[in-house]
Amino acid sequence: MVKAGIIGSTGYAGAEIVRLLLQHKDVEIKWYGSRSYIDKKYYEVFQNMFQIVDDKCLDDNMEELANDVDVIFTATPQGLCASLVNEDILNKVKIIDLSADFRIKDVNVYEKWYGIEHKSPQFIDEAVYGLPEINRDKVKNARLIANPGCYPTCSFLSIYPLAKEGLIDMETVIIDAKSGTSGAGRGAKVNNLFCEVNENIKAYGVLTHRHTPEIEEQLTYASGKDARIIFTPHLVPMNRGILVTAYASLTKAVTYDEVKAIYDRYYSNERFVRVLDKDVCPETRWVEGSNYVDVNFKIDERTNRAVMMGAMDNLVKGAAGQAVQNMNIMFGFDEAEGLTGVPMFP
Amino acid sequence: MVKAGIIGSTGYAGAEIVRLLLQHKDVEIKWYGSRSYIDKKYYEVFQNMFQIVDDKCLDDNMEELANDVDVIFTATPQGLCASLVNEDILNKVKIIDLSADFRIKDVNVYEKWYGIEHKSPQFIDEAVYGLPEINRDKVKNARLIANPGCYPTCSFLSIYPLAKEGLIDMETVIIDAKSGTSGAGRGAKVNNLFCEVNENIKAYGVLTHRHTPEIEEQLTYASGKDARIIFTPHLVPMNRGILVTAYASLTKAVTYDEVKAIYDRYYSNERFVRVLDKDVCPETRWVEGSNYVDVNFKIDERTNRAVMMGAMDNLVKGAAGQAVQNMNIMFGFDEAEGLTGVPMFP
Amino acid sequence: MVKAGIIGSTGYAGAEIVRLLLQHKDVEIKWYGSRSYIDKKYYEVFQNMFQIVDDKCLDDNMEELANDVDVIFTATPQGLCASLVNEDILNKVKIIDLSADFRIKDVNVYEKWYGIEHKSPQFIDEAVYGLPEINRDKVKNARLIANPGCYPTCSFLSIYPLAKEGLIDMETVIIDAKSGTSGAGRGAKVNNLFCEVNENIKAYGVLTHRHTPEIEEQLTYASGKDARIIFTPHLVPMNRGILVTAYASLTKAVTYDEVKAIYDRYYSNERFVRVLDKDVCPETRWVEGSNYVDVNFKIDERTNRAVMMGAMDNLVKGAAGQAVQNMNIMFGFDEAEGLTGVPMFP
Amino acid sequence: MVKAGIIGSTGYAGAEIVRLLLQHKDVEIKWYGSRSYIDKKYYEVFQNMFQIVDDKCLDDNMEELANDVDVIFTATPQGLCASLVNEDILNKVKIIDLSADFRIKDVNVYEKWYGIEHKSPQFIDEAVYGLPEINRDKVKNARLIANPGCYPTCSFLSIYPLAKEGLIDMETVIIDAKSGTSGAGRGAKVNNLFCEVNENIKAYGVLTHRHTPEIEEQLTYASGKDARIIFTPHLVPMNRGILVTAYASLTKAVTYDEVKAIYDRYYSNERFVRVLDKDVCPETRWVEGSNYVDVNFKIDERTNRAVMMGAMDNLVKGAAGQAVQNMNIMFGFDEAEGLTGVPMFP
Repeated sequence: MVKAGIIGSTGYAGAEIVRLLLQHKDVEIKWYGSRSYIDKKYYEVFQNMFQIVDDKCLDDNMEELANDVDVIFTATPQGLCASLVNEDILNKVKIIDLSADFRIKDVNVYEKWYGIEHKSPQFIDEAVYGLPEINRDKVKNARLIANPGCYPTCSFLSIYPLAKEGLIDMETVIIDAKSGTSGAGRGAKVNNLFCEVNENIKAYGVLTHRHTPEIEEQLTYASGKDARIIFTPHLVPMNRGILVTAYASLTKAVTYDEVKAIYDRYYSNERFVRVLDKDVCPETRWVEGSNYVDVNFKIDERTNRAVMMGAMDNLVKGAAGQAVQNMNIMFGFDEAEGLTGVPMFP
Repeated sequence: MVKAGIIGSTGYAGAEIVRLLLQHKDVEIKWYGSRSYIDKKYYEVFQNMFQIVDDKCLDDNMEELANDVDVIFTATPQGLCASLVNEDILNKVKIIDLSADFRIKDVNVYEKWYGIEHKSPQFIDEAVYGLPEINRDKVKNARLIANPGCYPTCSFLSIYPLAKEGLIDMETVIIDAKSGTSGAGRGAKVNNLFCEVNENIKAYGVLTHRHTPEIEEQLTYASGKDARIIFTPHLVPMNRGILVTAYASLTKAVTYDEVKAIYDRYYSNERFVRVLDKDVCPETRWVEGSNYVDVNFKIDERTNRAVMMGAMDNLVKGAAGQAVQNMNIMFGFDEAEGLTGVPMFP
Repeated sequence: MVKAGIIGSTGYAGAEIVRLLLQHKDVEIKWYGSRSYIDKKYYEVFQNMFQIVDDKCLDDNMEELANDVDVIFTATPQGLCASLVNEDILNKVKIIDLSADFRIKDVNVYEKWYGIEHKSPQFIDEAVYGLPEINRDKVKNARLIANPGCYPTCSFLSIYPLAKEGLIDMETVIIDAKSGTSGAGRGAKVNNLFCEVNENIKAYGVLTHRHTPEIEEQLTYASGKDARIIFTPHLVPMNRGILVTAYASLTKAVTYDEVKAIYDRYYSNERFVRVLDKDVCPETRWVEGSNYVDVNFKIDERTNRAVMMGAMDNLVKGAAGQAVQNMNIMFGFDEAEGLTGVPMFP
Repeated sequence: MVKAGIIGSTGYAGAEIVRLLLQHKDVEIKWYGSRSYIDKKYYEVFQNMFQIVDDKCLDDNMEELANDVDVIFTATPQGLCASLVNEDILNKVKIIDLSADFRIKDVNVYEKWYGIEHKSPQFIDEAVYGLPEINRDKVKNARLIANPGCYPTCSFLSIYPLAKEGLIDMETVIIDAKSGTSGAGRGAKVNNLFCEVNENIKAYGVLTHRHTPEIEEQLTYASGKDARIIFTPHLVPMNRGILVTAYASLTKAVTYDEVKAIYDRYYSNERFVRVLDKDVCPETRWVEGSNYVDVNFKIDERTNRAVMMGAMDNLVKGAAGQAVQNMNIMFGFDEAEGLTGVPMFP
């Protein structure tokens, strides 16, 4: 059994890692890290775990943890993982970081958008951007995985085939994204109270959201062009789910069938990307609880644009599920192990 | 007292007209039309009206109604108003049609997008597109008002100042809109059941939604350019509210202050359009139950684009409130009479 | 114009007082008290008030306030009003206290259930329990109103006629209540986050909720018997509304018609209590935003029990609306002034 | 592999059977019955099943089905299973009926409460009430399982230990239950539209709900006394979950510890019943998607009553999960096979 430790196990993403690993046949969780709840029973924080998990929450000691486990998940605020990791630790243990610390290759871009100093830039180059559909081979041998952001995962996988094939103008990409509220985390803030979120929809972080450079970087790699996007996230009164509606001008006239063939070529062998049938739009309810990303597109001849759409569960493919998928690749397990749960509806 | 009749008073928009007129000091409702509930007490359909409305529902007889009232609201499916209206009726009574029948000036465009034959195209020219902020003077003397669609109202008012001033390229406009579920009506459909809508967000009518030509027509008038837009509506798990996030390329470099001055110039005298402070994004919760449209914008120097945003209550400014606003103008009342309710939060 | 001050104007109940008073023709708000947001524009806290309220938030200085206004509303945590009020203030200004400080006549009961020392027990006797349907005459001349709790208002008015008539055994009363989340206040607590409340229902404060002695006291007055109840509140994933389902054994056989006549006798002249038609159950959606309490009952011959039901908006009749109703009585206004808004649905 | 057929596979309960069986290692689904969607791909009805289920929906032919499969689940309206089943079928195949047809032993009671004639009363005696915690041994060899109702399962398991031990007066039991909306089924009815359910709570079927006699019958067996209950269901704006709050007078003074010992005695070996820690109230969020029932109780010395509480997922332990649990017992599988999913939160 692979032994896993989770730093930040009492946030929503951390708790989702717990849920998924409990259903993984080759992994056992040895360390439920949570600075806020040290010495408290984990099930007292999440009563769904009553009679399932009997462990207590432990402090965030990465040094000690590195001796005890084979893989560490850090589901923590930006900056923490970068401040804890070092060569010695990386020699002992695999790290899958769910924060943004190692996602962006240009440390200046990271420091500008995140407004914090990067504490271990020496590992940025080595870190692998953990999007298996793109970087599967690199993930295999990585010591340090930068697990992609939720919005970037859904945005990128929706757009990727057209970007890669050069069929869209990378200076015209607009991504209008909508997320359930678990994406805002479990911190006690007035803005995330039930009565503030319920019966409301709003945009936030307009033009300034920190997932913007992450998406641009990946789209630039994919297209070979300098991608300049507008990314607008919205908060939706639901628990889980991200929906992406993206727009871009086509670089040449294409038919539905041609583009469908392209999406199928990229994704038909991907276990977790489903290219929907013609005219079926992705909806978050159909992927809830699962690691799927559902994608589709429409070609608008009137305006010579493509509309690209994607839906996924922000806590699964957008965080914990993708982390487990990366872990499976790193340890040679079946890539879908622990991730075969059928989406739950309603 | 002005006497009002409502055809389609048991839909959500019709019921909202009832709610607003009950709070209007110069109007009394004489006719609660509802083909589905003939002879049933109105309050048995909407128990909030218990001990407030004692009338029974009546059939949709526009001829008879025209003799009894001063103004008729038709809150009915597309095609009904056009099939009932005639010169004789229009000579007796003002009509405010909440359907799309008289919104689009080109009958071919109407028939193509709506898929039905227009039964009285002879009144299309005369009908006034009832957006008071644009057509206030024409509304005054109109016999027949085409009350704007919910999405078009919010989309247009968000974009109007920049379109009118020629500051955005009308071939690059993308409108990503999100609506509460009351916009889908009160018909019994599986897709609108609680468990289907709750915990979900989806796009629908992508590239084919019938509000597209309505928005394009109005933007074309405003800009003097042939507007070609993409309009994508989404269904949000909440009762009321529409949020619009619109994008367009700028035709020249402008600053925030310059654009703010333009928005203020167009809207500072408008009772129901609020231009928010810098960096405050519109949210539907802040306008619920009221006739306000909250608008704002951001200028993206990185991509040379404008993001234009608007929020309103789809049943009020997007339907019943705007209809009452039009009625107020037509009958010489204070434009805000019956519409002064403070937005209800939470 | 009567001048009003609100201490605690940035909680949900305080904000609802603002909303209602803005629609009251004889009152103007002179003091938006909010210790948390001193010097901040009120509309920056509640953007629905943009272009409606331009005042800044002020500190909670009751002494100064007493010189400036005619009536003070305290929508604050337990203990604050009792710690601020004094004879000098009461001689200058009417006080309507929305906290529990003066609701319970036995100070020992108050201190036991609330776990705090009462700072001005000398005013408890004088304070009038502000349930107009019961104490209208006393309210008229009161200096200090103890505005009833939300659960007690709905519970009591649902049960009152049968309790008063001696038709139910006061030792068998069970009140199972369900409340929207605005009742939990606007404090930033993990338990009230959207993702914690949404898709969940729970009981809380079982056997220990502090509204228990308040309900018991009022039921004891009404029935002349020592009422011993079980009161169980539940948290429902919605913003507004309280539903009460209460049960008690009948003291003698009665028919529906007999009991209906009793309810009608008590409530047919009450503007804000609606006794529903036979077999129509109260629902919170039908009273939202209004000052109504909808009540009804069923007689179970199988078990010789009555089921008594009530629905109201916890922020209106359960807090701010009732406070305004009390103010109207105290100042000789029409009791419904500012409270005539039709319930908003959906 | 055991072969399963589902009649009514496109309702919410039927779809949940599909979800659970797809995760069951020893079962394959051979027949997706759905009269409404014959010949339509199952995944076109439930897009979550895209690329998971490729079968088409088939008609409800129980005769043919009996030849093809080993077990039939009927997730259909009352009366259908009773009208289809016969001796020949029962000799060929196990039937697990999720409707009420075989739950109530007295056919007169069934016909009175359900208002329909029972078409095969000859199988009522043989049918086993499929509550494994009570009837595990009988389930083993049954040909026909009457899968319990959702409310009865949660109500009964919450009350059972005290009823069985004679510690509560069976004439004083009051069950106040709250259910998510999936319990109302997937039929297109105005009352179940999003805007009708959202932001609302209501009681329904007060004194007349058809689960009343089912609960009474089981409580009568358990207690040996003639149980006469009041059962009041409420509709909650959430998808899944049932919460039961039950009340009864104690027959003698008992302490928390004594009662806790009793609950533990009955349930400590039960895989799917969790007796919570002292003062922890069951909440539906903690069991979502799982087969757990969480129960707890409080003893009120003030009123000499017990409050008994339970929470479960109405579609799992309240329907499909319990059906699979029964199937596991009937076929000799591990009772938890396919039911080990960890509750999903949020």
